[in-house]
Amino acid sequence: MPEDLEGRLRFDGAGLIAAVVQDAENDQVLMVGYMDRVALARTLTSGRVWFWSRSRKEYWRKGDTSGHVQFVRSVALDCDGDCVLVRAVQVGAACHTGERSCFEAGGEIPAVVLPNEAS
Amino acid sequence: MPEDLEGRLRFDGAGLIAAVVQDAENDQVLMVGYMDRVALARTLTSGRVWFWSRSRKEYWRKGDTSGHVQFVRSVALDCDGDCVLVRAVQVGAACHTGERSCFEAGGEIPAVVLPNEAS
Repeated sequence: MPEDLEGRLRFDGAGLIAAVVQDAENDQVLMVGYMDRVALARTLTSGRVWFWSRSRKEYWRKGDTSGHVQFVRSVALDCDGDCVLVRAVQVGAACHTGERSCFEAGGEIPAVVLPNEAS
Repeated sequence: MPEDLEGRLRFDGAGLIAAVVQDAENDQVLMVGYMDRVALARTLTSGRVWFWSRSRKEYWRKGDTSGHVQFVRSVALDCDGDCVLVRAVQVGAACHTGERSCFEAGGEIPAVVLPNEAS
């Protein structure tokens, strides 16, 4: 990891940052995962998206089991260094359920929508 | 919070879920914040986006200080219930730096991009 980048990263108490994966082709938000320093470094250098699985406690290169690979197109860090936005080409479904996006799998939940001036 | 929704939420050890805010008008990912049960309930019922600030340890209705309000258009839960995607109309800049998105503020970081077949 370049030293100047290293200094900007703010990993949490578990050594993780959040990673939002956005479809580089249509801007859909596909999923959110977590990366530690190693998973981020691999994502930045290998062309593929790597995560740290909090539940399985192991590294996870997206698509190795499912075939639903994510090819990195760009990575941006947020203003306070604790989250990255990965724009990627998604092969097949991002979600383990078979849905394109994990947020399509979970689905919309009831939210009150008000006219802007009334909110 | 409706009981069936409550049962699908998976708050972490600190009682939080991640919340990705996406611009409802152009699909740009604007920021990532965190919500506890209360902030989520307020977001779902008030038409405005609420967060729990981990650094300040207080509730935070986006825009109350800055004027950079987020009006809720829809909220989706992910497949495993630990993250929400909020689509919102953003007034002004989402980022405290004045940039529209926190990821524009942090900016792109160097990432190797390979042809898909070579990755």
